[in-house]
This record gives sequence, structure tokens and C-alpha cells, in this order.
Amino acid sequence: MSAPSTRVALIQMACAPSTAQNLDHASDMVREAARAGARIVCLPELFRSQYFCQREDHALFALAESIPGPSTERLAAIVRDEKITLIASLFERRAAGLYHNTVAVLDHASPAPDHIVGIYRKMHIPDDPLYYEKFYFAPGDLGFRAIPTSEGNVGALICWDQWYPEAARLTALMGANILFYPTAIGWHPGEKSEFGEAQYSAWQTMQRAHAIANGVFVCAVNRVGHEHGDVVLTNPDGATTEIRGAGDHTPASGLEFWGGSFIADPFGRILAQASPDREEILTADLDLSLVETTRQHWPFLRDRRIDAYAGITGRFIDSSQ
Amino acid sequence: MSAPSTRVALIQMACAPSTAQNLDHASDMVREAARAGARIVCLPELFRSQYFCQREDHALFALAESIPGPSTERLAAIVRDEKITLIASLFERRAAGLYHNTVAVLDHASPAPDHIVGIYRKMHIPDDPLYYEKFYFAPGDLGFRAIPTSEGNVGALICWDQWYPEAARLTALMGANILFYPTAIGWHPGEKSEFGEAQYSAWQTMQRAHAIANGVFVCAVNRVGHEHGDVVLTNPDGATTEIRGAGDHTPASGLEFWGGSFIADPFGRILAQASPDREEILTADLDLSLVETTRQHWPFLRDRRIDAYAGITGRFIDSSQ
Repeated sequence: MSAPSTRVALIQMACAPSTAQNLDHASDMVREAARAGARIVCLPELFRSQYFCQREDHALFALAESIPGPSTERLAAIVRDEKITLIASLFERRAAGLYHNTVAVLDHASPAPDHIVGIYRKMHIPDDPLYYEKFYFAPGDLGFRAIPTSEGNVGALICWDQWYPEAARLTALMGANILFYPTAIGWHPGEKSEFGEAQYSAWQTMQRAHAIANGVFVCAVNRVGHEHGDVVLTNPDGATTEIRGAGDHTPASGLEFWGGSFIADPFGRILAQASPDREEILTADLDLSLVETTRQHWPFLRDRRIDAYAGITGRFIDSSQ
Repeated sequence: MSAPSTRVALIQMACAPSTAQNLDHASDMVREAARAGARIVCLPELFRSQYFCQREDHALFALAESIPGPSTERLAAIVRDEKITLIASLFERRAAGLYHNTVAVLDHASPAPDHIVGIYRKMHIPDDPLYYEKFYFAPGDLGFRAIPTSEGNVGALICWDQWYPEAARLTALMGANILFYPTAIGWHPGEKSEFGEAQYSAWQTMQRAHAIANGVFVCAVNRVGHEHGDVVLTNPDGATTEIRGAGDHTPASGLEFWGGSFIADPFGRILAQASPDREEILTADLDLSLVETTRQHWPFLRDRRIDAYAGITGRFIDSSQ
């Protein structure tokens, strides 16, 4: 079922050490967005905790949960009450020793009690200083997906995926009209003055280009705040476990998440953009008929040379091999 | 043979009705660029004439020439004299009734008398109001290419190709460190005030994204001037044939080419950008070691999910089929 226009809201939030507090806070912001008329709400990547992938620590697997599980159960109630579609990024425990960085899409119209209409498991997993995701997450095995919701087909991709034109293309070719990118990206404090502006610009440019190349809306939602990856978990007995982040917890360590969530239309125009450092509910009304109008005027899909793209499935095209 | 650093020059030029005059003018500008130290010089798309694809007229096939042919012969002398690499976009007559929009890459170090080290035939052919290219050009059949030159491997793609992430990716995967995009793109005068800025922004954003996604330099070279597609051909006997363009030749008709040629580094930063309306030789020194440094810091090629990209060779991924 497709709607001619829909209001989206991106929850640009800061994450505290306490996972319980983050879920409460996210729930409040989602309800607030819904009450302001949002039909689709998207949370940032791994919003339940500080960005723990700043170090490799086996204790942190305790953060993972099943899907459906405690977080989706809590969020499903909001989805049902507020009659919305919700995109939630979670640390998924799929089996003992098998974890994913996963998005669950919940829709009020789903007849299932958990309201989950689809999940997507992050396909491209980074591994770079302070982003040690390959330690925690197995690469996704579901491929790319357009997930049918009350507001039409949506794609949910995750952070590092945003640097890959292939991910956006495949999701659009499956019929998604809006691509959501829950994200946790920030500056190394020591690099910010020299590279910060170029890094944000590259990040936004890349995603605007996905909108343009595919004639789809793109919604990127990032967190804000300077984090060292401290985590406070609430145990089943109500007691808490503290897992202190790595590093010396000075302003020069950790990551400064750059916010800057934005919404782009199918020609890459910025419809709304959030600040670099404040919590915000970023909202825009999307005229979904623009997908077709834009593609008629810039008919890139018409002229793709599908007979000549097979090399895309190669790692490199070595002339000597 | 690869150089650690190289100076490129993009010839942002205006095109007159006379094809002879355009070749003279282009030759002069290429020599001037070379004498200012450029090692690789790139001309805009179809620089030998006004942009004739504004209408469908069989008489215009008379503009086509063989490769090697008169234009490459003239340019080869400059390449040899000035010891440069030159990228020249030409209307190729391949056989009776078979024409292409083709780039020839000429290199001074080539032992061949014509100095041609590679050609590329435009793979993505547009067909839109005033851009009736499907009438003139058969789609390229050489695929995407990295062409070895004295200055390292370069990719030459053409105008409409610039909207396709697949083209940039495949050319980069073949080893090109610099992507050149000879272009002829402009505003419909009636659309400029409402859409002009967004169109230029989308055009530049898309190509900066190719630089970012692939960690390569991108050089886009466009023409300037308001054209109605008038052509004056010089015949073998020295007489000229005039082929008047379509339309009423008012300021409201024709195309206003938007110049704005630019050079982006492998992180999408603009190193140099030309004006929207003046002829310019746009120059930048490219530190080719940045390709590897940038890819080490933003290791997108490492994490591509080549196991999951097969759908790229499909037109669409229909859930019902």
C-alpha cells in the first residue's frame, strides 16, 4: 500500500551509559514525533547504548538481544498506540556466538503481535580505529531489501552501507522509495579540525548521490554527543552492571558524533538538516509522487547497461589475470 | 608507468558553428595548457561542433569521422610536440550507418604513429528534450576501460555516464586512478531560474560521490555558451556547408551550457572549479599517492559484498516475478 505523501521523523539523539535510560528516552522522542504527525519514525544506529564498538570487549555481547525481543516489544506498543511505522536499529543476538547489526521495521498495520514487517542485517561491516565492528557483527545474510509498510516500500540500510552505491541501487531496484540510514558516525577529536568538515561533506555527498542516482528519498539519522563507550546494563534482578569504555576519557579520546541528520529528495536536494550537536526530531513531508516525476525527467533507470555490469560482482578487475 | 603526481588541465571552451574554427581553437588551448605544465589535457564532449543533438537531422551525420581520422591526426601532432596525454571526445563514424560518441586517448609515449593508446565508446546514451543522442549514437560495445598512459591508468567516461555509479565503479576496479568526464550539459533557458541551481548541484554531487566511493580523482569538463546547434562544415574542396539548428534562435530556445568544470580529489574535495560562463583552462596538480592513502583510511573496496551484488545486472528486481 503506497501513500502519495508521508511525514517522516528522524530521531537525532544522544546516548547515555544506561541502556534502560536510552530506551525510555527513545520511546519518548518517538511518541513526540508521532504526535507531531510523523507516519514513519527512524531511530539512529544502535540507539540503546553508547557506541560500544570503540573497543573489543567480550563483556559487551551482553548488550545483544533477540529480535523480536525486549526492545521490539517495548517499541511495538508505541507503534500500535501511535499508529506509525518505526525503524529501529538493534544489536541482534541470533544464536550463541552469532550477532548482527540489524534493523527491525515495525508497522502498526501488521497483524503480527510483534508488528515486525521486516528486518535487515547490515551487509557492509567496518573495521577501523574506534569502529571495531567486525569483532561484534557477522555480515548480514539477508541481502538488500525493500520492506513493505503502510507508507509504501522502504529500504533500511545501516551506516557503513551508506558508502556503497551498490547497496542503494539494489534496494531501490527492489522497489524502495525511501532509503533510511540509521548511523553512528563521528569525528576522532584529534582529526576534527583538519578533516572534520571534509568528512561530513563526503558523508552527506555520498548519500545525496544515492538519492540522485536512484530517484529516491534518503533519510540519514545520526546520534550526537561525545562518547567513550561507557555502558550500564540493567540485569534481570534489577541490579546494574557497569562496563567502562576504553581510553582515558579525556576530550581528546573517544568519538564526537557529528549529528547532521538530513533528509534529501529524489534529486538530492536537502529538505531538512539537523545541527551537529543537539538532540532534534528532524521532520519533513515527503511527496512520494516525486519519485516517479524525478525519474521521468532524469531517466537513469531507463538507460542502465545491465549487459555490461557483471564485473561489479568482482573484487577487482585485474588486467593481468 | 605511473607518476606520483601529475598536472591535469581541463579545456572549458565555447563552440562556434564552424568545426574548423573549433579544432583550431581547441588546439590552441591544448598547447597553452601544455606550456603551462599540464601532463594530461582533456577536451569537452564533442568539442568539434556546437551540440548538434538538439534535433534529429540526418544531414548532421556528415560531422562524423573515423578514429584515427582528421581530428586525431591534428591532435596527435600536438601530443607529440608537447609531450602530453590528451583526451579527446569525437563523433565517430565506425561504418556506414554506425556511429558512436567516442573518446580517444592519445599519449606522446605511444610508439604508434597516431599516438592513440585507447578509445572508449559512450555506454549510456541519453534521449531527452534537446538531447536526442539515441538518434545519432549506437551504444558503446567496448565496456568500461582503464587506459594506460604515461601518467598512469585513466578512465574516460562521457557525460550521461556520470549519473551511473556502475560506470565509475567498474572503471575504478579496472585500475583507473583518474576519471575524466567530457561533458556537454546545460540548462533549458526556461528552466534555469527554477531548477538551474539544483541541476548543477546534482551533477556535481553525483560525480564527487564517484570520487568518494572509489577513492579516485574525478575531472569533469563541460562547455560554455548558449547554443542553438548551428553547424558550418568545411568540405574537401574548401567550400562550406551550413546546417542551421532547430528552433527560433531566441534567448528562450536552445541550451545554455553551464560550464562549471571541476576537479575533485579521492575524498570528493573540490580542488578547482571553473565559472559557469567563461572559457577557462582549469588546472590542478594531482598527488596520485592520495588514491592509496584515501583508500587506506576509508577502505570501501575492502568491504564490498561481491557475493550479494548480482542483482545489479537486472533492470529491476520485481518481487512478483
